[in-house]
Amino acid sequence: MDLAYISIIVGSVAILIVFLLIYLVMKEDEGTDRMKEIAGFIREGAKAFLKREFTTIGVFIVILAIVLWLLLQWRVALSFVIGSISSLVAAYIGMSIAVRANVRTANKARTNSHKAVVVAFRGGAVTGISIVGLSLLGIGVLFIVFGNDPTVLVGYGFGASLSALFAQIGGGIYTKAADVGADLVGKVENKIPEDDPRNPAAIADQVGDNVGDCAGRGADLFESFSDNIIATMILGLVFIPVYGYNALIFPLLIEAVGIIGSVIGVFFVRATKGKTSTNVYMSFMVAGLISLAGFFAISFWLMKDIRLFYTLGLGLVLTLVVSMLVNYYTITGGRVTKEIAKSSQSGSALNIIIGLAYGLESPVIPLIVVAGVSVASFFIMGGGMLGVFGVAASTMGVLASTGIIMSSDTFGPIADNAEGIATMSGINEEVGSALEELDGVGNVTKAITKGYAMSTCILTSIVILFAFLTQAAELKGIDASNLSNLVVNIANPIGIAAIFIGATMPFLFSALIIKAVGRASFKMADEVRRQFKEDPGILKGETKADYSRCVGISTTNALKEMIVPTLIGIFTPIIMGFLVGVWYLAAYLVAVKVVSGILAMFMFNAGGAWDNAKKYIELGNFGGKGTDTHDAAIIGDTVGDPLKDTAGPSLHILIKLQNILSITLLPLFIKFAFF
Amino acid sequence: MDLAYISIIVGSVAILIVFLLIYLVMKEDEGTDRMKEIAGFIREGAKAFLKREFTTIGVFIVILAIVLWLLLQWRVALSFVIGSISSLVAAYIGMSIAVRANVRTANKARTNSHKAVVVAFRGGAVTGISIVGLSLLGIGVLFIVFGNDPTVLVGYGFGASLSALFAQIGGGIYTKAADVGADLVGKVENKIPEDDPRNPAAIADQVGDNVGDCAGRGADLFESFSDNIIATMILGLVFIPVYGYNALIFPLLIEAVGIIGSVIGVFFVRATKGKTSTNVYMSFMVAGLISLAGFFAISFWLMKDIRLFYTLGLGLVLTLVVSMLVNYYTITGGRVTKEIAKSSQSGSALNIIIGLAYGLESPVIPLIVVAGVSVASFFIMGGGMLGVFGVAASTMGVLASTGIIMSSDTFGPIADNAEGIATMSGINEEVGSALEELDGVGNVTKAITKGYAMSTCILTSIVILFAFLTQAAELKGIDASNLSNLVVNIANPIGIAAIFIGATMPFLFSALIIKAVGRASFKMADEVRRQFKEDPGILKGETKADYSRCVGISTTNALKEMIVPTLIGIFTPIIMGFLVGVWYLAAYLVAVKVVSGILAMFMFNAGGAWDNAKKYIELGNFGGKGTDTHDAAIIGDTVGDPLKDTAGPSLHILIKLQNILSITLLPLFIKFAFF
Repeated sequence: MDLAYISIIVGSVAILIVFLLIYLVMKEDEGTDRMKEIAGFIREGAKAFLKREFTTIGVFIVILAIVLWLLLQWRVALSFVIGSISSLVAAYIGMSIAVRANVRTANKARTNSHKAVVVAFRGGAVTGISIVGLSLLGIGVLFIVFGNDPTVLVGYGFGASLSALFAQIGGGIYTKAADVGADLVGKVENKIPEDDPRNPAAIADQVGDNVGDCAGRGADLFESFSDNIIATMILGLVFIPVYGYNALIFPLLIEAVGIIGSVIGVFFVRATKGKTSTNVYMSFMVAGLISLAGFFAISFWLMKDIRLFYTLGLGLVLTLVVSMLVNYYTITGGRVTKEIAKSSQSGSALNIIIGLAYGLESPVIPLIVVAGVSVASFFIMGGGMLGVFGVAASTMGVLASTGIIMSSDTFGPIADNAEGIATMSGINEEVGSALEELDGVGNVTKAITKGYAMSTCILTSIVILFAFLTQAAELKGIDASNLSNLVVNIANPIGIAAIFIGATMPFLFSALIIKAVGRASFKMADEVRRQFKEDPGILKGETKADYSRCVGISTTNALKEMIVPTLIGIFTPIIMGFLVGVWYLAAYLVAVKVVSGILAMFMFNAGGAWDNAKKYIELGNFGGKGTDTHDAAIIGDTVGDPLKDTAGPSLHILIKLQNILSITLLPLFIKFAFF
Repeated sequence: MDLAYISIIVGSVAILIVFLLIYLVMKEDEGTDRMKEIAGFIREGAKAFLKREFTTIGVFIVILAIVLWLLLQWRVALSFVIGSISSLVAAYIGMSIAVRANVRTANKARTNSHKAVVVAFRGGAVTGISIVGLSLLGIGVLFIVFGNDPTVLVGYGFGASLSALFAQIGGGIYTKAADVGADLVGKVENKIPEDDPRNPAAIADQVGDNVGDCAGRGADLFESFSDNIIATMILGLVFIPVYGYNALIFPLLIEAVGIIGSVIGVFFVRATKGKTSTNVYMSFMVAGLISLAGFFAISFWLMKDIRLFYTLGLGLVLTLVVSMLVNYYTITGGRVTKEIAKSSQSGSALNIIIGLAYGLESPVIPLIVVAGVSVASFFIMGGGMLGVFGVAASTMGVLASTGIIMSSDTFGPIADNAEGIATMSGINEEVGSALEELDGVGNVTKAITKGYAMSTCILTSIVILFAFLTQAAELKGIDASNLSNLVVNIANPIGIAAIFIGATMPFLFSALIIKAVGRASFKMADEVRRQFKEDPGILKGETKADYSRCVGISTTNALKEMIVPTLIGIFTPIIMGFLVGVWYLAAYLVAVKVVSGILAMFMFNAGGAWDNAKKYIELGNFGGKGTDTHDAAIIGDTVGDPLKDTAGPSLHILIKLQNILSITLLPLFIKFAFF
């Protein structure tokens, strides 16, 4: 049998598992009428947003598909359409269940805290498993249908990237406009608590958790997962003389193993006695061990090269180290958040200064570790082009856990939503300590999933770069199997200029996104203030706030503001490609990925540290809630919001998008570029 | 006559002019006893700090001189000592006069506002002219003494860079610890105005203006000026076949012309009727035109290559564009500061978010313009290695105006100090509108000098890089006159790793510096709070604040905290050089310079925008002083302080230091590196 069919089988089984998980979540009860009502608002808001967002994205998909068809070939265009749609479908399935799991989790928390965790985790697993399942299935089918030619799959990767960028920017602006707007007027000006039903922006804030954190991150990982498989398959073309046909299907099999591990892992989160967070750890362990066993089998028996196993394992080490560092910089009550909390005693300025400083410092060690792991993988495989394949293998080792990691990541917004619904429907007292259980699990998973997203993003971007370089060489008739034939020389003014321009891109991109959030949240704050002013009954809890207007503001602005950054993300590499040619385009791409990677990590960690410094104060330290110190910390948290939840994640996608797009358009660059 | 002697003659004349300027400043009257007393405090504080700072730096100079002597040769070691000492002497002269010109400016302002501007500008010119004069004199003498071998001059450049880094980090931490500490407790907590004599940190704040802004920036430009001449002379070695001996002395002559222009320009700032800011513009124009005429003469008659004149002129265009953009992002009442001020209405969080966004956006066009100018200069000279010489020439075109620009830059802190002294000695009413005249001129010069510092820093760093590459080639026996022989290939995991590590350095470096400021200002705030609490008479103006303790805190902390970042700045390129060899070290250096350049620009402009958004509100917009909007804007301004005045400027120096150090140690890297 053609081993490529395994990807189709595993992908299909994963989809079936998703249906099972959906059934398991949906059979739970939704709780009181008030809970149903609140959950209904959130569901409607999310659905309405996604519908309008997908329509906008759809227009772009159609236009670009036609362009790709005319300029390249129909197979690339078809892959592109399937890639974009798969990404959107995965996001849609995940979110549809997330907005149903939230209220069920809240209801379960009234009776059994352990079971509440399980409901939330399974809700998250719908996203996690459908992402990896759909991705592997789509790629596997296209690979076989198109006669084992991975180069036409770049369209699939580009489609996934494009959908991801739109989803992340749109969702990210939505969620933070709502969050910041709600906080500015609610928490800061009127001192009402988070998720208070009197706040007109409260529902928009809840919707945001779903469309931003959940759908956005899902699209990000769908992209990483797909792009990485495709890039490694393209790289694999160079290694057919070494590994035969296996060089091409190696990534499919590795990720199939990863999916099997993830699916089994998900079911290890059960409502047993003891701490549920231990259960979550267990599920990671199980998934990891199954993957490792699979890696060994594939490396040893199929590829007959045990060195691949070492590099695959090295990827897991990297994830661990980065997660530990994220932990160091952001965990509540750690050294860093304590110092930020302490400096809040001297006001918000010092809170922000210290947070910025730690944020700036935080990418240093992770990036050096990434560099170290790459170089180590390179040398384990004996250097040269095979060394580059080692780097790709270590990346696949990391990505194999996408399913289980994404499950626990989506757990976060579901649990947050459950808390919000509990607060808004007045059952807070009832659930009490159960929410702490959810929070505990959330804290465990947060650092891990963030560290994970960072590592995969940077590693994937390196792999795609080499796929780009080997393809460029092939198309130019250069023998790509010799690494020293690939030359990106930056020792001249044009090379330096390409690096300069690439390095500015992430700054421009984040600036536009942060400004968009700023503008939208300014409007949101105005609306909340207007409602409070025009109807003083709202703040007294006597009349109902008008949630739908706030939902409308987030929706409209997110859709309006997501277009320009996306277009800039698409057109810059195209302009560069035609202007400076493929080799200097590579220099540009290196600059984009390095600077984006650092900037994103800075934003994630600074934002996380401010958030948890505030939480640390809320635990009663340095005076606790309601003090000036707490107010100062809230400012820092708010500043961090658009950084960590909008600009940072969008940068992750930008890197991959620009690179995979460059591969897609390679034939055109080579034909028409100046150099 | 050997034309190199012209540099010695012009340098010596410049020093004589400095004495004349000192005489002109010192003959003015110091004013009332209270003014003398305040000025005395500032002078003593500054002197005490510089003394201790220079002692610390001296220790490092001695150690490093011995190391250079043992590992390389005595001539490099001697150049190093002379370079470091020249830089310190220039800074010392400039600062000694700045702390005397301040009170004389304040006193003059009581009678004649135009004349006050002249006193401040001439005080600034002492710094400006002594920097360029000493630099050219030192380089000229060493060049002749060492038998026309520019390669041993790298020691001079390294010495200048080392002193600059210490002076900038130390001075920068000093000034911002005082400023932030004073603001946090004075302005924010107790609502007393800026420069209020009741604030115990007020004197430390004034001292800081001198040791940070004045001595620090002076050392920065001394470094740029020297490094650029030396690097271009080293590059010139390659062009002896083309231009003969003139290739080596070309940079000396260009800068000699620049100094002549600057000296004449300085005396165009006179107390005439009409706006004095027009006078300042005039002086720039005169200096620029004299330089241009000189450029033409040198290109046409001496070098016999008119293309050099075009590239020299292109440098001036670049400065103009960058200055205009700095203006756009930071000028009070411009589009950007207005929007930041407006967003302050929704609190400090939004003020900071919008400021961050504009700051992140601000480096984009300048960097693209820098890239464009480099590429244009490259092609004007016909590409190839001669094209690289064109890039160097365009940089020299920019640096020729260092004298006049630095004069107007030092004008800033002198004018600030004059305002401070006026406020603290109670003659504020008396001087009234004269201070506005000073402010007006300050606003004109600020954007220009900042844009200037940014352009020169990035351009110089490109020139030093190519000096490094040609030297590396020479030492490896590769023909450096053919550009395609220089290959820095980043298309492999080691090249990528070098780029990754280089890109993280500026983040680490700024993080350490910002944290240092944060820590020191936290202590400062504590001390101010303590004094207010223990002696309530201080706030009522009944008892005197203890200024000396605050001065002590700034001094001690600045000296303590400047060591680690400097050592990191020195050791990272050394480690990289031995670990990855000279070509990948070049990749590392490219990443350092690009990322530092962007990060510094972000910090300068964000800080400037916050500062001027606050000033815009203080002019009465959005409610003016004392409103919540104003308070929110003060937070933003305070956050920006360590960015724009400590971390940003230090990054400028870091870039050049690492590069010139790498050239200095090239022989060792080539002998002992792994690759």
